Parts: sequence; structure tokens; C-alpha cells
Amino acid sequence: MFNDATTQEIETVMQEAWKAFHVYRKLSLRQRAGFMRAIAKEIEALGDVLLNTAGEETNLPEARLRNERARTLFQLTSYADACERGDWLEASIDTAIPDRNPPKPDIRKMLVPLGPVVVFGAANFPFAYSTAGGDTACAFAAGCPVIVKAHPAHAQTSELVAGAINKAAIACYMPKGIFSHVHGVSFEVGKVLIEHPCTKAVGFTGSFSGGKQLFDWANQRKEPIPVFAEMSSINPVFLLPEKMKVSAMETAKMYAASITLGVGQFCTNPGLIIGIDNEHLQKFISALGDELTRTAPGTMLNPGIFKNYVEKRANALSQEAVVTLAVSETKPALNQGTPTLASTSAATFINNPILHQEVFGPYSIVIRCKDMQEMITVAEHIEGQLTVTLMATDNDILNLDELVEAVKNICGRFILNSVPTGVEVCQSMQHGGPFPATTDSRFTSVGADGFKRFARPMAFQNWSNALLPDELKDENPLKIRRTVNNIPQSPDQPVHPGKSSEGV
Amino acid sequence: MFNDATTQEIETVMQEAWKAFHVYRKLSLRQRAGFMRAIAKEIEALGDVLLNTAGEETNLPEARLRNERARTLFQLTSYADACERGDWLEASIDTAIPDRNPPKPDIRKMLVPLGPVVVFGAANFPFAYSTAGGDTACAFAAGCPVIVKAHPAHAQTSELVAGAINKAAIACYMPKGIFSHVHGVSFEVGKVLIEHPCTKAVGFTGSFSGGKQLFDWANQRKEPIPVFAEMSSINPVFLLPEKMKVSAMETAKMYAASITLGVGQFCTNPGLIIGIDNEHLQKFISALGDELTRTAPGTMLNPGIFKNYVEKRANALSQEAVVTLAVSETKPALNQGTPTLASTSAATFINNPILHQEVFGPYSIVIRCKDMQEMITVAEHIEGQLTVTLMATDNDILNLDELVEAVKNICGRFILNSVPTGVEVCQSMQHGGPFPATTDSRFTSVGADGFKRFARPMAFQNWSNALLPDELKDENPLKIRRTVNNIPQSPDQPVHPGKSSEGV
Repeated sequence: MFNDATTQEIETVMQEAWKAFHVYRKLSLRQRAGFMRAIAKEIEALGDVLLNTAGEETNLPEARLRNERARTLFQLTSYADACERGDWLEASIDTAIPDRNPPKPDIRKMLVPLGPVVVFGAANFPFAYSTAGGDTACAFAAGCPVIVKAHPAHAQTSELVAGAINKAAIACYMPKGIFSHVHGVSFEVGKVLIEHPCTKAVGFTGSFSGGKQLFDWANQRKEPIPVFAEMSSINPVFLLPEKMKVSAMETAKMYAASITLGVGQFCTNPGLIIGIDNEHLQKFISALGDELTRTAPGTMLNPGIFKNYVEKRANALSQEAVVTLAVSETKPALNQGTPTLASTSAATFINNPILHQEVFGPYSIVIRCKDMQEMITVAEHIEGQLTVTLMATDNDILNLDELVEAVKNICGRFILNSVPTGVEVCQSMQHGGPFPATTDSRFTSVGADGFKRFARPMAFQNWSNALLPDELKDENPLKIRRTVNNIPQSPDQPVHPGKSSEGV
Repeated sequence: MFNDATTQEIETVMQEAWKAFHVYRKLSLRQRAGFMRAIAKEIEALGDVLLNTAGEETNLPEARLRNERARTLFQLTSYADACERGDWLEASIDTAIPDRNPPKPDIRKMLVPLGPVVVFGAANFPFAYSTAGGDTACAFAAGCPVIVKAHPAHAQTSELVAGAINKAAIACYMPKGIFSHVHGVSFEVGKVLIEHPCTKAVGFTGSFSGGKQLFDWANQRKEPIPVFAEMSSINPVFLLPEKMKVSAMETAKMYAASITLGVGQFCTNPGLIIGIDNEHLQKFISALGDELTRTAPGTMLNPGIFKNYVEKRANALSQEAVVTLAVSETKPALNQGTPTLASTSAATFINNPILHQEVFGPYSIVIRCKDMQEMITVAEHIEGQLTVTLMATDNDILNLDELVEAVKNICGRFILNSVPTGVEVCQSMQHGGPFPATTDSRFTSVGADGFKRFARPMAFQNWSNALLPDELKDENPLKIRRTVNNIPQSPDQPVHPGKSSEGV
């Protein structure tokens, strides 16, 4: 339907983005925020056409798409607020001490944008992690132009959203090149985008193989650039003994819903459940299996994702010593993913890397441990994850410190007595985790801290007040939070020159 | 003198570091800070033996070594203060909104340590960027064990400092494995350290070829890990027209001192000076040349660095259309680096990548531009730098916005009317810059923000107050700065549960 962008087209797009960068980076936080709010309004103005198009392309139900659109608008507007508030700039001022030996210079620091950011959207979130999704919103807030490579699975939806962004760009007098939208079914398009010297950072949400490939290309450039790829997570859930004694049934119900939510097509889907092999775990497994047996298959995003689910699930189930515990009783229609529960022993899991891989869909495997020591060993053998969940009483936690500490080591978000699905958009969210969950655990793709993926600190030394950017001027005209001589200030506090910290 | 560590020795060291990590990460900020302060005391207690040993190994004069030791102690103690203050944890709390649809969970986030950090010290800073230098101090503050590979050029100095760290570790009841010290002349030792699965981050200060090699090894691991390598910078200085009209002589004196400071062996040495070719620049060049002619050569750190200087300088001077303007008149003794000034045209510089490379030593090249437009073109063709300096009047700055913006794009620290040598240790310092200055421009190796290279955010969702780490408890027992529902709080403010921000 859409032609792949040619190398020449990408060259033009990137040159324009580079030019736009030098204009856009100088715009005020308020102007950036205004642009982001205008994008939200334009997306809203697309109305049901957008929902219908996305529904046709992704098979996602309307209610889900309405929620996802609301989330996307909230991302844009709440990140706009955060952008304008300016806390994320990490502005810091050290005032001069001229009479120190040697004299201490005046040094002031703030974050500045990296440059054009290439965004690869996700198949499973046509709005929230795609064209005008979190990565794009973070890049705009940070002061970077954005080049989106439309996901081929929802290219028409992406076109509509791109149109809304372009409309907002014109209405807000943004420079040409602030946003570009290219199509590409071939991996070549992504490669050319990443290898272009004007590309300064990359955001990606998708498969491990896709994200790792982009990461490798970016690091093989003459000038390596940062890639934040959110790739792969099976979101382990540890069922602790006392909790299971009192809440096996309730937990099973909760997890049946979480495993099958959105036909299991979430990066936070709980694909691994670890328990102590006893009567309570049996009760949990039996109840969870019953629930999944009764849950009807659902249509998956597209035939490719369905095929992938069928193959990965079959591969997992065919591994030695893996037992299929439950399969939905309803016969699936075309491209429908069937809820499935498997089980195996801790020893089998630890020794078979295939069982550590994500099976993207309504699938989970229960790992039976002989005792707590074996559960800790399992935790120590799990790769990096977006989330880990404990189902535990307070006593479980207090008694099992070793497990808690082992788990802290492998996850970005640590959940207690809840489900991993559902990623709240807020400042305290961490959506990122040790490799292979993401390519850099030090960043998040959800929440305003996500801006920092696309910005770097720059220090100004010995500049006169009048020549400094507004963010760093004594009088703090933007009223942003700053640290002055190591002390965090309230936004209405100006700097008193001459008052400085000690130093050698 | 010292044997290279064997693969088996490294295996033992890394296993011990891994075990120590699980103990050390749980220690309080106060305990970490106490350990760092104890290291400073133990280093001080080494007294003149340390200075004498370092002097013998590096040829650095005693006064410089005294200053560098003071700087190293200040790093350890000021980072200890920053560690304890806890601002760097970026603690953030979003309280629950149970009656929202869907309910908003309680989410709280803070930085946690990555794991064992391998540190490669610098040849030119036996104390401040070596065994107990900035990288080691940052890693300890962040909660990470450290494995130092001693620089072969000052291995005995490194041994002494390592002994001080080990003494402090014992006195502070630190876990075995909190610090290890290995020797390695062969690059194999570095490779084995970086490829070990228990290594979770790397700090490096040194050459481009060394840093880039570590970066590549780290990215080729099954689990890639972050490397902060500070590698290469020629620290361009732009001489703007009005400033040259009034201060050519003064600027020349200032820069003669900066170019030859420490025999030019600083990563912030001004190796590139760009001016408009006119009578004022001639005056500057002539005065700078005179100063360098009169400056005596100095003994370099070691024969390898001297040899490298001679070769790189000869190579630069032999390039077509490069003129040697001035060479120190004093005949150099063994291993002494000769102050040297070269010059060429902007066109030659732009087209010859050899002239963009660092010549580590008392060398600088003046680039003559026809006009401001050509100066801007030069700025656009310069790779990433730790620092860029403008020698400029206010008018110069206000008139030459395009140059200022081009420069902002290539540097980590932007200096006005001063010299790049001298890196202040303070919160607002940025010692890092776009590639190839460092491997990740989003971080710094000087200042307490350097901790963030070795830490990652982790979110706790739905945890009860009693089970949360102290840093995130409602009552804020550690009295650290936190953001609550998007609003930065003062350290004595507890959280009022139930008071939350809006969300969808």
C-alpha cells in the first residue's frame, strides 16, 4: 500500500531533520509543550476514523483502542506539562569563588537535546508506543526532531497520526523537518535510518531480534549512538508459600485475566509463574487452568504475530519435561490465539534457554520448585526483565530476604500482590530493565524521565548572566527547579551571586 | 614487576565482587559514605611514600602530585557527602488513587546499583582518575563493588592506593570482594574483565583506541553492558574578532600557559585554535609562538607517551599545507616533550582528518579562517569534544549566534574567556561530551552526577510502607530530596498518603 522510503528520500528527510534541530532546540519549553498539546488535539480531532482504521489494521477492539488513544493523549499532555515544568533539565549552578586558590569558576549545567531521533513503533500499540507515542513525545519534549518509521502492521493508522502531527507542526509554526514519517517493510529502511550521520538517537519497542539488530547497527557506526530498545520480557511472578496458603484461588483468577488480557499481547504479560510444589500450588494451577480452559481465544494483531505465537508456543510445549496443563476449550477462528498453560520443573527450566524466551500471546508456564532454595536459584537464572511480581504476605517478604534481593537484581519494576499488565504513565514509573528487557537499564520509556534518553548535560563555564540561557540565569526567569551550590532550590529562588559551596 | 592476572584469578575476583555486591548494595548511604571517607584518610596516611612512588613512576612534579592527591581526597569526601545527601537517587513517589477507574497504584522509584564495575585508570592522573579516582568513588557511592585494572605506567602507585582501599574496607567491615586490584600489561586482561558475566559496567579514561576497544567488547557480549570511556578531545578554542582586537596579547599568554601546563598531558589541553586570518590573529600567533619558543620542554609521563607525542606531532606537521610556527628553543632532554605550534588554513583542516586527531602533549594548531562563515563551517566539521572555548566579547556572542549554536552541538563544557585546562570538581561540572570525546554524552565522569553511570531506576509498585526501602517510605526517615506526585519536596516533608496527582 505504501512504498518503502528510498535511500534518497531518507537522505532528504534526515537533512531536513538536522536543519530543524537547530531551530527547534532553541524554542522555549513553553513552545515545545504547546506543540505537544496541539498534537494531542489534532489526534483527538481525527475522531472515529482513527479508531476504525486502527481497528481494521490491528484487530484490537474499540474499547481498547479508545483507552489507548486516551493514554496517548495523556502522555502528550502530561509530558508537555513536565517539559514546561523543567525539572527534567536537572539545572545546576555552582557560583564562582574568585578568592579561592585557584579561583573557582562559575559553572552551570543543564540538559540539551541530542539531535534527530528515529522512532520505531510497536505492533501491539498503534497509538501509545507508535507514531505519536511515548518515544515521540519524549523526543519532542527533550528538543529533538523525530523521524518515525511506520510499523507496516498499521501503516494507515500511522499515516493518520502523522497527518495530525504535521497539522500541529504547521499550526505551531514549527520548522520544516521537525517531524517526518517514512514507510518501510524492508529492514533496509531501518538500517539506512540508523546509519545516517544526522541520526543521534533511536527509540524502539518490539521484538528482541529487531531491537538487538538496531542496537548493533547503532554501535557499529563511526559515531555510535544510543538506542533505547524495549525488547523482551516474560515478567516472572513468584508465588510465595504463605500467600499461596491463603490466596491460591484469588491469585489464579487474577492471573487468568492478566495472561489473557488483550490476547496476551503486552510486553508486561506474565509468561512465567514460579511456585513451591505443594498442595496450594496444585490448587492454584488447577484454578488457573480451569479459567484458561474457559477463556475463549482472541484474534491476534495480525497473521504474522499469530503465526509467531503458534510456533513459539508449539516449540515451548514440545520441550522435554514440559507438560501442557490447560488449553482453551473453544476452537479458535482464523488468527486467534489460544490461551495455554504449561508447567515444568525448576531444573528443566534452569537448563533450557528456550523456556526463558518470550512467547508473545496468551501463554504462561508454571515452574515447580522443590523448596525456597530452588526458587532462589530460579531467580538467579532469570535474565533481565521489565517487571517481576511477588505474590506474598508481609511474612513471606520478611522471611525471604534472599529471594527479594535476587529479584531486585533482574527487574525494572517490582510489583507486590498485583499483576504486571497495566503500565501507569507517571513520574515514578520505570518501564525498562536489565538486558534483554531493554538495551540500557538506566533509562525508561514511560514517564517524563524518558526525556533523558534523548538529552545530555552541557556545562557553561564563566559565562556572564546576560549571555546564559534563561534556564541558568541568576534570576531564574522560567521559575524551574534548580540546584544551587549543591542545594536544591524552590522555583522562585534566584541565585545570590557570591554565595557558594566549599571546594578545593 | 607485577604479573598479569590470569583468567582463573579474574574468575575468582569477579565471583567475589558478585557476592560482595549483594551485601554492599544493601548498606545504607551513610555506610557507603563512611567507607569512602575512610579511603580518603588511608590514602592521606600513606604520606610522602605515595607521592615519591608516583613521582618516580610518572615523572610528575611533587607540587602537581600534591594537588592531585588533594583533588582525589576531595572527590572521595565530596562524593561521600553527595552519596549521603541522596539527591542522586532521584527518589520519586506517586501515591495511589484507589477510586480512579482503573485504580492508580502506588508507585515509587529510586536508583539502584548496576553491579560490579571495572575501572581502567588513566596514565596521566595516577590518583584522580586512577585506582581510587573519580570512577571508583562514583561506583562505591552508587553501591557497586569495584575491580581496578592498575595502569602499567604506575602499577606500584596503584598498589599503594589499593592497599589503602583494602585497609579502609577492613576497618569499615566491608564485604570481601568490595574492591579488587589486578595487574595487566596485556590487553587480554582487560578483555577477560570486560567479558566476565559478573561485570555490569565499565569506567575508562585514556586513548581513543583503548576506549573504543573496550566499548566494542562490551557491546559484543551476550549481555551488553554500559561503558563510559573518556577518550579523545582536542578542545577547540574559537578566537572571535572583537575580542582579538582588544585582547590578542593577553589571550596568547593565557594559552601558552594552558598548552604547556603539565607538558600538555591533559584531556582538556587546547589542541586546536580557530581564528579569522587578520592582523589581530597574526599578533596573537606571533605572541603565542614567542611564548612557546621560550617555554622549556618538560619530561613526559613515560617513554611510551613521549614516543607517541613525537610521532603524532611529526605526522601532523608533515601534512600538506601545515606550517610549523614555533618550536621551543631549548633542546629537549630524554623523554621531554617540546612545545610546538603549527598552523594551517580552514580548508586544509576541514579536509584532513589527521589534523582532527589528538596530539597528546604540548602542541596546538591554529586554523586560519577567511571569514566568520568559514569559522562556522570549521565548527560544523569538528567531532565531539569535552570542551569548546570562545574568546569573545559580549558583542561577539550576540552577533555570532550561528557559531554559538554550532558549538553547543559538539561539546560537553562550553567555556567563555578562559582556558579548558582545570576541571572543577562540583555538581555542575560536565566532563563528558559527544563521541569521540566519550562513548556516551549523557553522562559525566566528574561530579556526583557521575554516580548515575553505575545505577538504574527501579520502581516499587503496590508495596506497603513497612516493606519499602527507607529511601521510599512515607515518613522519609533518611530525609532525602524526593518528588511526590510530580512536586519536588524538601527533605523534611513526609508523604501524605491519599494526596495524589491527577491521571487517566
